[in-house]
Order: sequence, then C-alpha cells, then structure tokens
Amino acid sequence: MAKLYFRYGAMNSGKSTALLQAAYNYEERGQRVLLAKPRVDTKGESRIVSRLGVAREVSFLLDHDDDARAVFARHASGEEGALGLGMSLPPVACLLVDEAQFLPPGQVDDLMRIAVLDRVPVLAYGIRTDFQTRAFPGSARLLEVAHSLEELKTICRCGSKALFNGRRVGDHFVFDGEQVAIDGESVTYESLCAGCYLRETGGALGPAEKHVDVTVR
Amino acid sequence: MAKLYFRYGAMNSGKSTALLQAAYNYEERGQRVLLAKPRVDTKGESRIVSRLGVAREVSFLLDHDDDARAVFARHASGEEGALGLGMSLPPVACLLVDEAQFLPPGQVDDLMRIAVLDRVPVLAYGIRTDFQTRAFPGSARLLEVAHSLEELKTICRCGSKALFNGRRVGDHFVFDGEQVAIDGESVTYESLCAGCYLRETGGALGPAEKHVDVTVR
Amino acid sequence: MAKLYFRYGAMNSGKSTALLQAAYNYEERGQRVLLAKPRVDTKGESRIVSRLGVAREVSFLLDHDDDARAVFARHASGEEGALGLGMSLPPVACLLVDEAQFLPPGQVDDLMRIAVLDRVPVLAYGIRTDFQTRAFPGSARLLEVAHSLEELKTICRCGSKALFNGRRVGDHFVFDGEQVAIDGESVTYESLCAGCYLRETGGALGPAEKHVDVTVR
Amino acid sequence: MAKLYFRYGAMNSGKSTALLQAAYNYEERGQRVLLAKPRVDTKGESRIVSRLGVAREVSFLLDHDDDARAVFARHASGEEGALGLGMSLPPVACLLVDEAQFLPPGQVDDLMRIAVLDRVPVLAYGIRTDFQTRAFPGSARLLEVAHSLEELKTICRCGSKALFNGRRVGDHFVFDGEQVAIDGESVTYESLCAGCYLRETGGALGPAEKHVDVTVR
Repeated sequence: MAKLYFRYGAMNSGKSTALLQAAYNYEERGQRVLLAKPRVDTKGESRIVSRLGVAREVSFLLDHDDDARAVFARHASGEEGALGLGMSLPPVACLLVDEAQFLPPGQVDDLMRIAVLDRVPVLAYGIRTDFQTRAFPGSARLLEVAHSLEELKTICRCGSKALFNGRRVGDHFVFDGEQVAIDGESVTYESLCAGCYLRETGGALGPAEKHVDVTVR
Repeated sequence: MAKLYFRYGAMNSGKSTALLQAAYNYEERGQRVLLAKPRVDTKGESRIVSRLGVAREVSFLLDHDDDARAVFARHASGEEGALGLGMSLPPVACLLVDEAQFLPPGQVDDLMRIAVLDRVPVLAYGIRTDFQTRAFPGSARLLEVAHSLEELKTICRCGSKALFNGRRVGDHFVFDGEQVAIDGESVTYESLCAGCYLRETGGALGPAEKHVDVTVR
Repeated sequence: MAKLYFRYGAMNSGKSTALLQAAYNYEERGQRVLLAKPRVDTKGESRIVSRLGVAREVSFLLDHDDDARAVFARHASGEEGALGLGMSLPPVACLLVDEAQFLPPGQVDDLMRIAVLDRVPVLAYGIRTDFQTRAFPGSARLLEVAHSLEELKTICRCGSKALFNGRRVGDHFVFDGEQVAIDGESVTYESLCAGCYLRETGGALGPAEKHVDVTVR
Repeated sequence: MAKLYFRYGAMNSGKSTALLQAAYNYEERGQRVLLAKPRVDTKGESRIVSRLGVAREVSFLLDHDDDARAVFARHASGEEGALGLGMSLPPVACLLVDEAQFLPPGQVDDLMRIAVLDRVPVLAYGIRTDFQTRAFPGSARLLEVAHSLEELKTICRCGSKALFNGRRVGDHFVFDGEQVAIDGESVTYESLCAGCYLRETGGALGPAEKHVDVTVR
C-alpha cells in the first residue's frame, strides 16, 4: 500500500531541497513524478526554489477549492498539463507537494486518497507551526492522518534543534498578527528552539496565554 | 535540555505498557518518577492499567482547569502527594503522562514548560485521533509542540499498520457521535489501517465529507 | 512486502516487554504469531521473560546450525510444534525473535528471506553491542540488512540515553573478557551513556584502544 | 551532550545534498562548521559533490592513519587549514563527514570522542553496505556506536525502498569482487530493494551463501 508522508520542519530546514532531491532520485531511475504546491504561496510563484540554488517548475498549482485528487488524476493521465497532448504516459510513481502547510484540510484528505485508493505515494513537505506555535490548516491535518511523520531538522542560534518559527519585525520578535505573512515582505523569520522561544515570549506558547509564571523552579 | 516526547498510537497499541516499562527503567536505576493522567479518563480511575496485566497507581490526576506545572511542582517537592510529609525527596527524573489526548491544550503547554524551564523530561502517551480521524485536544497540541513524535505501532485486522480508530456499536461501524465514548460502555473500538477505514466510510475521512468519489482509478 | 525489523536497545531497555506486547496485539486481533529465540540464551530457557513480570513460552528455539527458514516453515505449517497434529492452521501473521543478537549471521539472512520471500513480517529484538562496544554476531548482521532500525530507549544513571552496556564484577567495571557472560552469574551489567562509558574506560571504546588522549579540549 | 549521528542510505539517496544543506543551515545562522571526508574516496577529490549540482570544498581530508580528533582540533583552532593564520576563530558548531563508510573504525571512535568529550555534534553521512550486503569498515562501526541512526531513503526501480547496492558490469549484476570499486570506472551501481536483490542473486545475501533454497513457500 502506498503511503502519505509528512516531512515537516521549522522554516529553513531544507524542505524544498529534500523534495527536489527525492524527485531527482525517482527520475534518475526512469520513474515519473508530479510536483505540486498550493497557489496561495506566492514565493517563487510556480517554482519550487531551494536555498541551495536548485529550482524547478511545479507540475500544477492547487487552488483552494480544487478537488486535489481530480486535479492529480487529470495531470497523471496527461489530460491536462505540459506533457499531455495524446501522449501515452507512464504511471506516476510519486506525487511531491511543497508548502503543504497551506493546503486546506480537505485537500490533505485528497492526498490520503491518492495514496490509499490510487496507490501513488505522496510526499508532503511543510512547516509544522506558525509564529504563534499553532499548526497551519494543512499541517494540522497532516499531523492527524499521515502514515509517517518525519522531521527535517535545523538548528536554533543556540545550537539546539529548532522547533518553532519566531517572526521578527526589524530587530524584535512579534507574537501577534496574521497567521501568514510571507518571509522577506516586512517580516522575517528565525527558527528557534523551545527554550529560546519561551525566553522571547516570557514563557508563553502563543498569544492566548497571558499571565504565565515563568519562574524557573 | 530536557524534552517533551509524544508517543502516540492507535488504540490498543500498548501505550500503557510502554509507559509502565519506562517508569520501571528509571526506578530500576534508582531514579524517581511521577506518573499522571487527566481525571476525565474514568477507565481504571487512578490506575494505569496495561492489557498485559501490569498496573500501578498514578502520582496525581489532573483536573481540567489545573495549572499542570504547579501541580507537578507540589508533588515533586513533596508538598503534596503520598511521599510528602516533610521528607527530603530526590529530584524527579521524569514525568510520565498517560491518556494525554484528553489534556486541554494549555496543560500540554504546561508540560512543555516542565521540560524546558524545569528541565524534567516529560513522556506523554496518547491516542492520535478519534473515531472521525480528528485529533483530541491534547493530541492536537502535542502534535504541534512536542520535541519528538514517536509512533507506537499496532496492526489492522488486514495486517497493515493501523492508523485510525473505528467505533463500533454492535456489529457495525459508526461515524457520527460524541468525540469521547469510553471503550466497553455501549461502544467498542477497532484499530484500522487507512485502507480498511476508507472502505468502511465509503471513502470519507470523518463525517464532514459527504459525497466523495471513491472510484479506484 | 513484509519487512525485517531490528528493534535494538541497551540491556534492560524493555525489549522482551515490547515483544510480548506486539505478540499480544496480533493475537488480540485474531492473528497467529510464532515466537522464537536462539537456544544459546539460557536465561529463562524456553521462555521469554519480561522484567515487568510477563512471560510466555517460545514456539521454538533455534540451534546454532539450524536453517531458520526451514524450522519456521515446519512450525508455520504445523508439521512441528505444539499446535500441529494435522490441524488446519491459519497463516502466520508475524514471527517475533527475542535475544536476536545471539543469532549467527546466516540465520539473520534466513529471517530476511522469511520476510521477503515468504512475506511474513519478522520483528527481531536484541542488544546492539557487548560490554566492549562491539556488535554481537546477530546484531552486526541485523544492523547491515534489516529494513528498519528502531531504537528502544533506556537511560543511564546520569539521566542521558544509554548507548552501551558496562560489565561489572563486584563494584568495578571490567573491559576485558569473553563476549558473552550471562547477567547475574558472576557479572552484572549496567546500561551507560557514551559519556559515562568513556569516563569509566579513560576514553577508550573497547579494549583494542590503548593510549587515548582524553584531555577534554 | 553533543551526539554522533549516522545518516546512512543506499547509493544515490542524496547523502551529499543532505550534508551540504545541513552545513548551509548552520552557516546561515552565523555558525561555523567543518567538513571532512576520508582521502580514499577519489570521486570529486577534495570536494563534496551533490548530484543536484551543488558542491564545495572540504575543510580537511582524513588519511587512513590520522588521529581524526587531533586533526579536527588543529583545524578547529586555526592552527591548520585555510582560515588559520592567527585569526581568532569562533568555536566549531558542527563537524560534517561525507563518505563515512570509508573511515577506519578507530576514526569513528575519534568522531565519538569529538562529540562526547569535545562537545561538538558530528554528522556522519555514508553508505550502509557494499554490493555484497556487508557493511564497510566505517559503517560497521557507526552502526555499533552512533547515538542516532537515521535513514536517508531512496527507491528501487520497482518503487520499493532501496536497501542494497547492486554492482553492474555492463548489463548484468556481479556479486564477486573487491569491496571498493568506484562508480563509473568499469562498474556502475544500482540501488535495489531486498526483493529485487534476492531475485538477482537467486536468494543469497552476499557471496558466502551458496546453495540457498529459494522456493517461495
């Protein structure tokens, strides 16, 4: 049985590089893959761009109200997409999805059906939580249902494993605001371990908590 | 730095056995542990009971509105609990929490602070999702913040790894109802792989989805 | 495809408990399992005994020169073993092997063929290394070929994860001697983290190393 | 405590890419890393080259009889290496080692001491086994002692996870020969799952096994 994998990590942990490497591995063995991402992510538009300098076009973008399984089926069959035009296409060996945290939950369910009912492995790469330590809609659903949860690690400035994503405006961290604010436009992000994150917030995990006793006992 | 671990699995994957083994390992090395669980779980009351026949009392039960870190601190210091009475107690080497899926999210944040600020490792054991494939409040928060997500595996009747928990009333599976209905009282549960779960629902993951095309392409 | 799993850990990490729990999980779902261990292990003779107090008989013991796949086949078919006698037996859903570190390498290859050619999952539990940090014959082969390497954790007296197994004679650790000396007979063992192990040896990993500079730079 | 990690995989699983990404992650956060590999690997000489097209120079090559911890210390201090010359250097946050399967076992022990005694995390990337399913000297030792064994996955031509490395001369697989024969010079390699490997050998794992019964029961 094919599986749905969620490979999650803090920002700048190398998710796009890992996705591009996985696609390369399949293609090097003569197998066909499709690459997708949600359209909401405007960074790089229809390209998957790695900080190491590698990039390639996605096979398709997913709109918020798409039936992802139907879109996948049309691209797999060649009915739609660059390779189509009546060619006889090999089966798809793997679907790779970048920025999967931005998928609506129903599209994650579609990915699950692609894996289980259509028997095509799905590798979904994404950020686990936002700057307030809350899961994005797609991550929350992937954490619930994916067959396999695999962490891509990166480090905090202190050398510990980063868990969270701090949002900066200028020199200081902010903990209130919209869930999505794209890196580089007015805000930047820094991956932080739990200790450094709690130090910045004064002991709170996200904005809902107000009067936390942070005495270190 | 101490960490918060979430060891999750489908029902009947052996979570309580694993917790009791971990506690045993610490104590065998002369180290002190505390065991806790949310009071909402009435099965076994204040005991942690393994299907293999092993059982022991918890150190404390957590009420829904407790500050879990403060309760932990009182039991760790001996101010409260069976070992107290002015004894000089060794430090707590580990806090083990059973049925962690029933914790309110704020108590998961308390566990995180116990690990990071009080430097006591926390092992939280729990079920990942309910019979509708939705995370319980405690699981949802643990999936967001735990340092380490570790799966305890069990198998579906078909031999594949179980992911989900089907709820049965008599001979058939039901997919509507309250999130919590304790095993053995009017309902039973069966751990299912994604394929068997989707076969039972007709292709849906939970009740929100209605008219799913389940043609296997 | 069925897989060969190596679930390894330091001594007293709960391997037998985990094995017995896995067997219980299968049988609870109405599936048949076989349990085996190498005869060389005299502790508990033909029983698998957990420190938590759970125990059961193995289905068969493996002698050093057995063709493990052939022995398995005879017990699976009922030609040999307690359940035999012309009964029509259900297929074996899983083979569980305890003390797998003592298997000769060729029997590990047999386990691989049981998984891959006979399509029966094999769960092998064992210790990774001896008191000199060298793999046992069975562990060495399992570390080379198993589909999945899964660690069962326990802790050192210092609270860190234990990696190694120190051998004690009376009050002090020894680092020379035979690879196998059963716990409780003249020697005892203590699971140690790498730091505590190196402290005891003066910086060496095993006896081959003599003049190690252990200055902490 | 810093740890020694062994990130292993079949050939062409993306190990060098993963190493270069990890180095990038550290440096992006302003932290200093050192990169090393054994000199025996002539592919790319003193460069680490990823099949995705990324490459960079190592900080130092290890000769077979080097004390790896002493060499590391000289490069960390600036006494030796490109950055030296009396500069005041920041501490090394991580040592990354490519082609670690070719290290002699004693140098793996040196890496363990760098992690545990010098408190510098060591990420060692390497191939698990040779074309006869036997571990390389460095891999064998890393599988024995590393704190963490993490698999980098790739796929077999059949779509299953690759475990082994088949060696080809022209169109056919060979199972006898020297352990090391560099890819591209007279031989090529293909990553294979256990099923496809056993099909090619007729049921044997490596050359030591001769008359294996491969009847699928």
